Amino acid sequence: MVSDLDKGLLIQFGKRLRSLRLSKKLTLRKMALLCNVEFADIQRYETGKVNITLLSLGELAKALEIEPKELLDFTQEQDLKH
Amino acid sequence: MVSDLDKGLLIQFGKRLRSLRLSKKLTLRKMALLCNVEFADIQRYETGKVNITLLSLGELAKALEIEPKELLDFTQEQDLKH
Repeated sequence: MVSDLDKGLLIQFGKRLRSLRLSKKLTLRKMALLCNVEFADIQRYETGKVNITLLSLGELAKALEIEPKELLDFTQEQDLKH
Repeated sequence: MVSDLDKGLLIQFGKRLRSLRLSKKLTLRKMALLCNVEFADIQRYETGKVNITLLSLGELAKALEIEPKELLDFTQEQDLKH
């Protein structure tokens, strides 16, 4: 069972991923071509639907030409919006 | 099949996790009690044997009282030691 705080982490990661992708002017399709991650999986990560692994996160970082830590460069919101 | 670069990422993450745990003077057992992660799993993460998920990484960050991004605060070594 994924708690609200957990969902929050996945959603924040998804938002971060999407903003980095858009800042690099990459479409989902282009990004998928640049790394070993399926187009549909990137979409699911961006909407906080899938609990990404470190290796997949590393693949996304490679496609974005950034360090993996930049994908987690957000502060976890403590307040849970109900 | 996990490539050398992938193994590198897991090993570097493991080293980072271990150094943060020790800096907080936490044993594996104490850390396991502080979060929803098994003692043996923390050990496997520290030795780069398991591809951790973002939610588990979030749990470890909670136990260490840090932001998840601090667990990835290392620069990926590009050179692959054969």
